[in-house]
Amino acid sequence: MAMMFGDRMAAAVSAVGNCAVVGLDPHLDRLPSHLKARYQSKDGQAFRREAAAAVLAFNRMVIGALEGVVCAIKPQFAFYEALGAPGFAVLEETCAMARAAGLLIIADAKRGDISSTAAAYARSVLAADGPFHADAITVNPWMGADTLDPFIEECGRSDGGIFVLVRTTNPGSKFLQHHGDPFAAWRVAEALAEKGAQLVGSSGMSSVGAVVGAMTGDEAATLRTIMGAAWFLVPGVGAQGGSEADAVAGVRHDGMGCLVNSSRGVLYPPPKAREIYDADPAAWIATEAARHAARFGVDK
Amino acid sequence: MAMMFGDRMAAAVSAVGNCAVVGLDPHLDRLPSHLKARYQSKDGQAFRREAAAAVLAFNRMVIGALEGVVCAIKPQFAFYEALGAPGFAVLEETCAMARAAGLLIIADAKRGDISSTAAAYARSVLAADGPFHADAITVNPWMGADTLDPFIEECGRSDGGIFVLVRTTNPGSKFLQHHGDPFAAWRVAEALAEKGAQLVGSSGMSSVGAVVGAMTGDEAATLRTIMGAAWFLVPGVGAQGGSEADAVAGVRHDGMGCLVNSSRGVLYPPPKAREIYDADPAAWIATEAARHAARFGVDK
Repeated sequence: MAMMFGDRMAAAVSAVGNCAVVGLDPHLDRLPSHLKARYQSKDGQAFRREAAAAVLAFNRMVIGALEGVVCAIKPQFAFYEALGAPGFAVLEETCAMARAAGLLIIADAKRGDISSTAAAYARSVLAADGPFHADAITVNPWMGADTLDPFIEECGRSDGGIFVLVRTTNPGSKFLQHHGDPFAAWRVAEALAEKGAQLVGSSGMSSVGAVVGAMTGDEAATLRTIMGAAWFLVPGVGAQGGSEADAVAGVRHDGMGCLVNSSRGVLYPPPKAREIYDADPAAWIATEAARHAARFGVDK
Repeated sequence: MAMMFGDRMAAAVSAVGNCAVVGLDPHLDRLPSHLKARYQSKDGQAFRREAAAAVLAFNRMVIGALEGVVCAIKPQFAFYEALGAPGFAVLEETCAMARAAGLLIIADAKRGDISSTAAAYARSVLAADGPFHADAITVNPWMGADTLDPFIEECGRSDGGIFVLVRTTNPGSKFLQHHGDPFAAWRVAEALAEKGAQLVGSSGMSSVGAVVGAMTGDEAATLRTIMGAAWFLVPGVGAQGGSEADAVAGVRHDGMGCLVNSSRGVLYPPPKAREIYDADPAAWIATEAARHAARFGVDK
């Protein structure tokens, strides 16, 4: 029988001994130079087609470098959508490659909609016969707690998971997330704890997780108290700032509970290291991925 | 010089004499029977490819029926994403067809993300050389008012528009939208009024609009008071319930300001009319579109 997502995530973290996730965000102006050469001089549809081919080659290389090193990848859908249909074709292939390499896939799509529309989004990403077939998807709760239900129902059917946007760390994040008393974000956390209770596996972790940005400890600890069984997906390490201690401020006593993402910090070099990177981008990425993994070790 | 979205929307409403929008939501179990026959017995990728071809044929027929009758179409991205890359190829072609037919395009994608990611989403849909090139996009504000800025900046560059989710009418919509004092939704409305002021055109309408569901008058009137220059995109008419009076409760004194969407109510028949619909789906859709347009007439 297939395992529930919360358990599969725990098994993946234990297998590699760390809770590091790498974001697969193809920034077209930062890919290795030999790949950029393919699309740099093109326009319109030709640009998108060639850039998509370059991104596929890049992702194949990255996945090769990450296999057995980190527990999961997190493709950011926006960068594939920017390439139109060819970009989504690459995303389909990328998910299949990552799955074959034993990496879990967290689809960073931040979807949120009502009833049949939400169900369509959930199936596309979580169902085994959906085009993208990832293991989990990020979800936006603004339209209401009821709009999470079609995603959670699909998690039950497909053994998938969700990460609901609870607290982010962008400059304006408190505008709505800290509105009201209690904070709106805490209300979301309470709803998730309740809804996620039905999908807690033998590892003690639920398939209903939360996006909780890296921030100084107090709020992360509060959110952990509310959502004891939730995986926290933590962006905001590396290029987005946020310290290592902040990133794991929401960790459980057993060391589980946080998944720490880095995208640009692993995939791309600082400007002055461009030449070294271009000489062997796969080696660079493998080195940075190992460093990211070492920072966020978890006892096996 | 290109006109700003707020003005283009006003011109489109005046040209057809109504504020009716039709949602282009391809529900695969409800398409005309001769199109369903193409994909019904298929699986996996073959299913998605054949279904995408059927959706393209359907959309061509629908756009033909809507040309000159309503002011805009609203494709719901979820139903194209469900078909993977072939679905997005159909969405690209659908946007091009609608543009050629003189219909404005409101991309119902409900995107919301930070900085460079938000900018990528905005360009994909609003930029003239983006793959989808619609006139406006729906946006989710949960991550903070700052996350709207990349979309608004792209509106300035591309003469596009946004409709930010302020108040929806699904059963759980008040969970966050009515949280706090003032309601969180009203805070969003205030931020939109401020940000939208820089993009008000000669029609008096801004390129920064809002999604405001059809609801009894008081709250729509309050939101209109806060956002005097905003187009309100009103879902929730037809299949989602909501009366005609509710739909235009947020209209301005000059009769402008509301765009009323109907999707399933125009595109698909009730079960007992299936045979009549299948005999001539284009005629059925043209009739229902005309009825929807007549319900929401605006003085030219």
